Amino acid sequence: MKALVFDAYGTLFDVFSVTALCDRLFPGFGNELAQRWRAKQLQYTLLRSLMGRYRDFWGLTEDALVHSAKSLQLDLTASSRAELMESYLHLVAFPDVKLGLEQLRALGLRLAILSNGTNRMLSAVVERAGIRDLLDAIISVDYVKIFKPSPHVYRLTMVHLNADGSETGFVSANNWDIHGARSAGLKTFWIQRSAGEAPEELGYPATYVVSAITELVGWL
Amino acid sequence: MKALVFDAYGTLFDVFSVTALCDRLFPGFGNELAQRWRAKQLQYTLLRSLMGRYRDFWGLTEDALVHSAKSLQLDLTASSRAELMESYLHLVAFPDVKLGLEQLRALGLRLAILSNGTNRMLSAVVERAGIRDLLDAIISVDYVKIFKPSPHVYRLTMVHLNADGSETGFVSANNWDIHGARSAGLKTFWIQRSAGEAPEELGYPATYVVSAITELVGWL
Repeated sequence: MKALVFDAYGTLFDVFSVTALCDRLFPGFGNELAQRWRAKQLQYTLLRSLMGRYRDFWGLTEDALVHSAKSLQLDLTASSRAELMESYLHLVAFPDVKLGLEQLRALGLRLAILSNGTNRMLSAVVERAGIRDLLDAIISVDYVKIFKPSPHVYRLTMVHLNADGSETGFVSANNWDIHGARSAGLKTFWIQRSAGEAPEELGYPATYVVSAITELVGWL
Repeated sequence: MKALVFDAYGTLFDVFSVTALCDRLFPGFGNELAQRWRAKQLQYTLLRSLMGRYRDFWGLTEDALVHSAKSLQLDLTASSRAELMESYLHLVAFPDVKLGLEQLRALGLRLAILSNGTNRMLSAVVERAGIRDLLDAIISVDYVKIFKPSPHVYRLTMVHLNADGSETGFVSANNWDIHGARSAGLKTFWIQRSAGEAPEELGYPATYVVSAITELVGWL
């Protein structure tokens, strides 16, 4: 294994960091709004990819927020909308991220992010987490204008890292993302962040299952 | 307008007809299981289309059932699984369907179904609803091996019905399906089956919004 590529949202960065702000703006609806926002954001990446109507992850995340607020009949003002979108640039990294990446880097592996996010969105959260120096590349699907789990996206990593599928491991906490990467020819490591979470039935299960990034070093 | 094409699941046939059986097999979990099953089924159509790993709607509906039961930690026996899958062949038509189609047929319009379902699944529910004679065509995505909202799927209707986009109306209660059809060049009619349901933010809103199929005749 020469390189390890990480998904960003849900794997390195906690998308539910936004819940507290959701609840401050819409008391009693914070959790429901955050859950719907995330689910809708993912659904829009899939729908737009299949429609052949790409829109970048920033715009699509805002569309998902607008729809989710409407579906809950919440009055999303322009300032609340801007504040919630801004919070996406300040998502918190999970506690195992920095130490885990340091351990893997010490093994001599090339490390990268492969994400649906735009370069601007990814740079912001990477800087905030203090992990910029641990990464060889930050790869956005914005290069190919289609979202995961299109095989074109996963093949980007091989181009960027100059490594073939058998030399590249893909790490994600999103199980559908694991199926996509495995189907595209990469070795996969599923971070099962919730104990008992059922894997998807999509035909390309994870090569390895771990519960934290700090466990990866034991396998490599 | 020469032809009207209808989505099947959720538009003509109630996918939540399965809820009672879900609740008989798993008391107290019927509604949650039925909701998850439907959401996962749709998600799998999108994920597999984008992965380039088509599997027909029957197989994928069964995969979605298996995952949904596991996610609720329900013990899905082989016989319960078979019984639930069988129930998908007996979905009930909404009360406005037969009368609405008869009214539209009387206007001289060609009528068809365009659905993610397989031919076998669609034939079963069409026979049960007694609407076979009202339809000129039952078109399954299985011809093109990719699911909605791929534009290839919607363009199938023009081939089958020998009508171009401006002569073909597409009717669906699934709002994302409306965006897909409009993006592919069809006129669209959204059946808003739940009052207050928020439309999707995908850039291609419905040409017309009605609350039942029997209202379409007034527009045509």
